[in-house]
Amino acid sequence: MKLLRVGPAGAERPALLDPDGTLRDLSALVPDIDGPLLSDASALDRIRAAAAARVLPALDATGLRIGPPVGRIGKVVCVGLNYHGHAAEFGAPVPSEPVLFLKAADTVVGPDDTVLVPRGSRKTDWEAELAVVIGRTARYLESAGSALAHIAGYALAHDVSEREFQNERGGTWDKGKNCETFNPLGPWLVTADEVPDPQALELRLWVNGEPMQHGHTSDQIFPVAEVVRYISQFMTLHPGDIINTGTPGGVAQGRPEPRPYLRAGDVVELEIPGLGRQRQELKAA
Amino acid sequence: MKLLRVGPAGAERPALLDPDGTLRDLSALVPDIDGPLLSDASALDRIRAAAAARVLPALDATGLRIGPPVGRIGKVVCVGLNYHGHAAEFGAPVPSEPVLFLKAADTVVGPDDTVLVPRGSRKTDWEAELAVVIGRTARYLESAGSALAHIAGYALAHDVSEREFQNERGGTWDKGKNCETFNPLGPWLVTADEVPDPQALELRLWVNGEPMQHGHTSDQIFPVAEVVRYISQFMTLHPGDIINTGTPGGVAQGRPEPRPYLRAGDVVELEIPGLGRQRQELKAA
Repeated sequence: MKLLRVGPAGAERPALLDPDGTLRDLSALVPDIDGPLLSDASALDRIRAAAAARVLPALDATGLRIGPPVGRIGKVVCVGLNYHGHAAEFGAPVPSEPVLFLKAADTVVGPDDTVLVPRGSRKTDWEAELAVVIGRTARYLESAGSALAHIAGYALAHDVSEREFQNERGGTWDKGKNCETFNPLGPWLVTADEVPDPQALELRLWVNGEPMQHGHTSDQIFPVAEVVRYISQFMTLHPGDIINTGTPGGVAQGRPEPRPYLRAGDVVELEIPGLGRQRQELKAA
Repeated sequence: MKLLRVGPAGAERPALLDPDGTLRDLSALVPDIDGPLLSDASALDRIRAAAAARVLPALDATGLRIGPPVGRIGKVVCVGLNYHGHAAEFGAPVPSEPVLFLKAADTVVGPDDTVLVPRGSRKTDWEAELAVVIGRTARYLESAGSALAHIAGYALAHDVSEREFQNERGGTWDKGKNCETFNPLGPWLVTADEVPDPQALELRLWVNGEPMQHGHTSDQIFPVAEVVRYISQFMTLHPGDIINTGTPGGVAQGRPEPRPYLRAGDVVELEIPGLGRQRQELKAA
């Protein structure tokens, strides 16, 4: 299933996208798409049955904003340098274990919402990523095999990054990763049963129509299952938590000078076929 | 006012501690102590008036668990190396600007809750800290002077840290800062009007009764107002967000070998006079 949340920011309601492209209202069935729902197999089954029986009312998608596909996100755990191509363009060695950092849940916005270039920013950069949505509490998982059973679904994420704040302002990376609007997510959460192999997904990103990233999750240094297992050794993953699993090569910072960092007026589009497409216009904060 | 939340984890109810030590029930007045309440001056005034009129029902504190004093925390922003004594014991230069990292809100527990030593941990360490609780949205604040007006109150925090995960596992610090139960907070939130000078607070911490930290917020490299102003240049602070403003010298990692890292069975107590006292027993995760 493709689950999503539509409506004004902070007042989204749950919806489902039919295979034929019809948007269906889930408000009568569930209060929201969030951790409690995603950990509730019987509620998900009710949605599946209602969708199969075609009893859900259609929604007019015209002019309707799409929000992030998960409400009440607890935390966003991110993996850095997780694609061979991206580590190489940064001149970084292949990490011997996943590099982790956090984004606050309040950085998450809808897939087509405005992204703000922070004041004082000279190096706002893009990162198309596969996001994992946790569906079951994961704590000290013993194997990568058991990790996949803790995933509710997948979504497209944009891990917007300010490289100067991240790398040159005397701190850990978090300073350049947590600016307002820096984590567009969606349009949909595709449930895990419809993504048989998370290592078989293609990622693309364009800036002002020009192709910038074209990667594939088979290039991940640590595959999704290992990432979930690994993170669970250090922190507890809760239903509704998000994992940004890293970005392939092709970011601005990996390019020759003068590097094409993002500015107000730029338009970024990104896509993972099957997980949908995002489009953000950049504006000054 | 001293505001707190009492009851079982996840089902705490709001309360107030009288100057004479009587615990008063706030359930009839407000649903919770959280961001929406802390940003609502009229609701806080209603609590003040009820407290002054002594019309709030007393609560029997016997056997009552104290939870973290803020519910629905969005994020915990932390300042690293923010005391001269702590930077010196780590052999680190005095930072030219605040070092920031994040803890997820799900690491926050009550002041006397069990702290879990993570599996595989050899370097679990303590950090007594002054926590700031945000009361008004702070975004690109222009001066440190205006920053104080965005603070709802102060609390005692324990920024538990696993030094090997933090510094030797190939990532940013977050890996050693986000283990389950790693952020005891409370017992109370003391409203900002009762803390006229956040740079005039003493911090103490004991392990198994032995004094380990004894610092003073006047030793902070970046004072509270500057920390709030600074963070607001990189991320938006929302009501109910927490800032851990750094720890003074005296942590295990700053001591001679063999360093006295925490183990299951140890008891940590910490205190900021006026902000209360915490006591945690360490157990194996």
